[in-house]
Amino acid sequence: MRAATYVFVCVHLSLALFEEPALFPLPFWATSIAEVLCLTVFFGRLVHFAKVTPQMVFWKDTKNICIMVTIVLTLIDLIIYGSLEAVYIHSVRWSRPLRPVFLINFSESRQIRRAFRSIRNTLPDILYVFLLFLFSVLIFSLMALKLFGDRGLRTAEGASYFTNILETAFELYVLVTTANSPDVMMPAYNFNWWYSLYFITYIIINTYIFMSVFLAVVYNNYRKHLKNEIRKLAYLKRHKMIEAFNILKVKVGTEFMVKEATWKRLVKVVAPDISSSHLELLLRISDEGQKGHVDKTNFLRLADLLNIQVVTINIKRHPLEAWVPRVYQSSASLLIKKMVRHRIFIWVYDVIILINAIFIALDEKNPFISYAEWLFLSLYVIEILLKLYTYEPRAYFGRKQFWNWFDMLIILAALVATVANATIQSARKYNSQQILDIVLILRILRLLRVIVSIQRFRVIVTTLINIGPTMLTFGGLVFVVYYAFAVIGMEAFHGKVQFFDPNFTTSDALVCGNPALKGSAFARDRYCKNNFNDLASSFIVLMELTVVNQWHVLADGFALVTHQAAKLYFILFHIVVVILIVNIFVAFILEAFFVAYSLEKSELETAIEKKIQELGVGIQEDDVQGGKLTDNVDAKDSGFSGDDGDNKRKALKGLYCRIASKKYRTVDALLQRMFESEIGPDEEGPSLDEILNFSPNDIYPKNPNFENSA
Amino acid sequence: MRAATYVFVCVHLSLALFEEPALFPLPFWATSIAEVLCLTVFFGRLVHFAKVTPQMVFWKDTKNICIMVTIVLTLIDLIIYGSLEAVYIHSVRWSRPLRPVFLINFSESRQIRRAFRSIRNTLPDILYVFLLFLFSVLIFSLMALKLFGDRGLRTAEGASYFTNILETAFELYVLVTTANSPDVMMPAYNFNWWYSLYFITYIIINTYIFMSVFLAVVYNNYRKHLKNEIRKLAYLKRHKMIEAFNILKVKVGTEFMVKEATWKRLVKVVAPDISSSHLELLLRISDEGQKGHVDKTNFLRLADLLNIQVVTINIKRHPLEAWVPRVYQSSASLLIKKMVRHRIFIWVYDVIILINAIFIALDEKNPFISYAEWLFLSLYVIEILLKLYTYEPRAYFGRKQFWNWFDMLIILAALVATVANATIQSARKYNSQQILDIVLILRILRLLRVIVSIQRFRVIVTTLINIGPTMLTFGGLVFVVYYAFAVIGMEAFHGKVQFFDPNFTTSDALVCGNPALKGSAFARDRYCKNNFNDLASSFIVLMELTVVNQWHVLADGFALVTHQAAKLYFILFHIVVVILIVNIFVAFILEAFFVAYSLEKSELETAIEKKIQELGVGIQEDDVQGGKLTDNVDAKDSGFSGDDGDNKRKALKGLYCRIASKKYRTVDALLQRMFESEIGPDEEGPSLDEILNFSPNDIYPKNPNFENSA
Repeated sequence: MRAATYVFVCVHLSLALFEEPALFPLPFWATSIAEVLCLTVFFGRLVHFAKVTPQMVFWKDTKNICIMVTIVLTLIDLIIYGSLEAVYIHSVRWSRPLRPVFLINFSESRQIRRAFRSIRNTLPDILYVFLLFLFSVLIFSLMALKLFGDRGLRTAEGASYFTNILETAFELYVLVTTANSPDVMMPAYNFNWWYSLYFITYIIINTYIFMSVFLAVVYNNYRKHLKNEIRKLAYLKRHKMIEAFNILKVKVGTEFMVKEATWKRLVKVVAPDISSSHLELLLRISDEGQKGHVDKTNFLRLADLLNIQVVTINIKRHPLEAWVPRVYQSSASLLIKKMVRHRIFIWVYDVIILINAIFIALDEKNPFISYAEWLFLSLYVIEILLKLYTYEPRAYFGRKQFWNWFDMLIILAALVATVANATIQSARKYNSQQILDIVLILRILRLLRVIVSIQRFRVIVTTLINIGPTMLTFGGLVFVVYYAFAVIGMEAFHGKVQFFDPNFTTSDALVCGNPALKGSAFARDRYCKNNFNDLASSFIVLMELTVVNQWHVLADGFALVTHQAAKLYFILFHIVVVILIVNIFVAFILEAFFVAYSLEKSELETAIEKKIQELGVGIQEDDVQGGKLTDNVDAKDSGFSGDDGDNKRKALKGLYCRIASKKYRTVDALLQRMFESEIGPDEEGPSLDEILNFSPNDIYPKNPNFENSA
Repeated sequence: MRAATYVFVCVHLSLALFEEPALFPLPFWATSIAEVLCLTVFFGRLVHFAKVTPQMVFWKDTKNICIMVTIVLTLIDLIIYGSLEAVYIHSVRWSRPLRPVFLINFSESRQIRRAFRSIRNTLPDILYVFLLFLFSVLIFSLMALKLFGDRGLRTAEGASYFTNILETAFELYVLVTTANSPDVMMPAYNFNWWYSLYFITYIIINTYIFMSVFLAVVYNNYRKHLKNEIRKLAYLKRHKMIEAFNILKVKVGTEFMVKEATWKRLVKVVAPDISSSHLELLLRISDEGQKGHVDKTNFLRLADLLNIQVVTINIKRHPLEAWVPRVYQSSASLLIKKMVRHRIFIWVYDVIILINAIFIALDEKNPFISYAEWLFLSLYVIEILLKLYTYEPRAYFGRKQFWNWFDMLIILAALVATVANATIQSARKYNSQQILDIVLILRILRLLRVIVSIQRFRVIVTTLINIGPTMLTFGGLVFVVYYAFAVIGMEAFHGKVQFFDPNFTTSDALVCGNPALKGSAFARDRYCKNNFNDLASSFIVLMELTVVNQWHVLADGFALVTHQAAKLYFILFHIVVVILIVNIFVAFILEAFFVAYSLEKSELETAIEKKIQELGVGIQEDDVQGGKLTDNVDAKDSGFSGDDGDNKRKALKGLYCRIASKKYRTVDALLQRMFESEIGPDEEGPSLDEILNFSPNDIYPKNPNFENSA
């Protein structure tokens, strides 16, 4: 059901590819039928949702209202556009920028909604800084107009210099983004040395100080908001846990407790895949004295205990050892294994990679070098085979062995692509460009393996990989904003700029097919392909605008072919994307790295580790020297992942447990723990009503682990 | 003595203005005599310093070693250069970039040293990120070389595209700074749509992620380092306070105490300017039960108590009230005062300012408008006179009334300049350009007053003004780095590029006097004045490089007139200034704003406020409605500022106290308090030896308040 909704959201969004101006044109009736179909599905989903939710909650939820309003607006737009089209009047499909509303509000895109809420909450604070900043730009514009306007100065292109207040304000706004940095200063600086002080003051105040203040405001709000949301979740969890306790409790002596059997049943319901050993471990922690009861304090920690990933490690024998024990244990085999496990083995391969890099940099037209490529490929294949011989294969390709997977896939793909290329080449005597490109990229990506050998690099890369999933949230956020801007841009600018083959040098090709661009920087820099003629091109233009440099050339170009007011579109894009979204992205990376730097074990984790040690089934992290042990064992998360039959032994015997390595924790979980520690263990938090009334949007997308526990 | 050293440091640094390539040329013998003189003074100061410091401490201090080594090196350089010059061989004055060493290491420039230490401590962490980043750039360069090198693509200027690995790496490094953003992509993008994905991936990884990680690493280290330094200071203070307590203590009952009289004498010694009422207040807080003794815990807080600024407010009568009470209290006068204090009065003047802004924007050639200028000026003068009539003048121009001072000075200066201009104009019938410029700037600065009326703007501006002094530290840091780079740049590039008047269009002027620049972007963009021909020009070029945009054009230009290796100078500058210093600056602004946002009253301040309330001399901040009361009273810091006789009354009668308003605290003090709160009240900290051995550099520049207290 959820997947189906996602598919329809995608279909609905991708309609922009087929509508005028289209990448793959389809007639209006086809796209409009598809759109109506999508809207029907969304409406159906909403009706279904209304049935399963209490009516009051449903109508209070802004998500649902949003979707309904958008459906109605889209239908109205479709009818108007369709009827006008029928009488051959071309109008504007104004509801198209609203399409991402469905992506945001439907489905489980809670992260994107959170980011949007974060932006919304930041707006009031940022507004005042922005107004002050605009005021500062205006004051400086007035000054520039008065100081330089009457001097008759000319820019390097011969244009007039600071003679019009609006143009001056735009030039100075561009200077804040540094995109026209020395150029805008040069005429005044050439005229008089002292005038450079004006520009230096301007840059210090507006570019350095104001832009940093924007980042500070956005970052501060981001943190505050995040903290607030997570605190709310934590209180809610506590509240529900207390409810659960009150249902399950029995009176033992003077206190209320939960019986061991009840507790075990509860855990089995909440986490059906939990291994017996893990369950046993949690019970021993929750019921310290082994009295057969779990008291309230320990009961309340249950959700947190379940959230800690305990890896139960099961040392397995190599399959070859089972099949051909004699050969596998022979002295030659032992020697090979010892060799592969040795540090020098890694170093030798690092050197091979470096030599490979030099060969790649050299001219590959030389036949000797193209033969060398085969040598390198076979060396890498041998390496993987040797490793698979030495280490247990299932452990080597464990779920979290990112780099082993990476290695394997790169080599395999390179092998396939090289063979395919060689086959085509020998058969048809020509190189397929696409395959060659892929082979090249794969060949170079192989060099990334050097990173793995250097511990310090590995840490940075692992942190980056860990925050990868959350970075995708920003991908979603950026996509939504890009989509809306792209649709508006296509309506406003499509067809105004044409791209001709770069080898064409007709006068038409030189001005991108639009005489208005004659002599402009846009045409001179050959930016004709930066246009809004289809969705893909629009996205690339917006990407260039996000990078900021030369955005004023693009803005000027599109203003020339339409109207000066078109610059507002580009300024608005800069404010929304560069000042807001990019700053939130930077704030997120900063926060993620700070959390990674301040990583310490929580109280609960320490308790679990102590218990593991007590029970004598622990593995010291020191034992895992050079990763040899972890390579050899099959690490499994006993959280909610599938468990194979091996672990179903009764006791804790034969199993080794440890807390899942720190580096595999997600940032979100870290943040949550950071803020949760602020709630005292006995604190019950505000009443449910208070939490509910505080902000109804935040409750329904609950912590998933908690939903199971309650 | 200290001022004299500063003067000589300035003289020594300014020698670069007079040495070849000079702004104001002086012969070599003159500058070298001045330099030797400066070095003698520095050496003398060092000898003096060695006499007053214990020998071991003196030789352990890297500051002193640095200065000595620099003096010796400079002398050697002077001798070699001088003797070569005598036989007409021109060599390089290689010791000149070392000159800022004196500025850093002498004198009280502790803040700059701290910033440098912060950078030094950040280096190891940043190095690994930087290596990884370089690795990524190289991998991408290799890919670009292979993917695009053989296509025969051409840039918009017709140059070859990604055919050389070094050029490719440079282009891609420039792309990280976004300076050549869409241009570098266009040929590949024009060739094939899909190649844009390569550039988008590159920008996301290197520009967005790596640059954010750099900021995160720098920021994290900055915070860690700051915290460490301040904790060290706090421990040292605690330690000395305990020593002082042990000297002064007497046994009372079972506990050691300090007698009230001893305590009072101590405070008088430490803070000779303290008012009796303030002293009384502190005593009541320290000796809660009024037993005549101060116990250890309370004694240890003394330094912190003295650091809290308590404003004793003394309501004064207007001088006119004393001189002509009848007139001043007449109903007409009361009406005027009521009018001036009214909200509408402020609004009316805001409207006047806005009308003024429109008049400024209009053409001032029109005589009607230039008359209007006189009208506005007189309106502003009337406003100030009315305010002085209504409010007590000494209170109105109180030490912390920044905006009143600003108003007054701007109006006065505008008045003087306008009158001067009018006089010159009527006498000699021409406008002096300089005076006109000044009048213009003053006239526009007046518009800033609108900010004062809007509360939210005021808060932001006040925070910025508060962090101003610390921002000057960065000014110092940037100056030091700029100076070293400027001297090196002048040695390498002076005279290579010539500036001609912009109206000259001879072929020589078009290539900046250097044929090597023919057809280059440097010459086309008319960057001839961006050269290293004197110190001032060099600083402006370095400023442009800091802003980043078009830095590759400058680097290419100077590489063309010298050697391709010159690009290394520009890359190094980018790494040092943009990646390190600008990020530290951003980190500082972020931290300052976070501290300002998380501003809460400390425990001690709450204690003092409670006591003030108890004694019935408090002023609720709510009472100070609309700032009317504060306008009317004379706020004094009873810390170390001068106190006039009025306050010497015996008791607390007639005085109103309140904690100095939050907005006037410095960021440094805030940070200190933030970190100090982590030390428990009874904790004695590590032994003095431990602190001393930990880092000797940090101890001698102590917290000044504490030096007094101990």
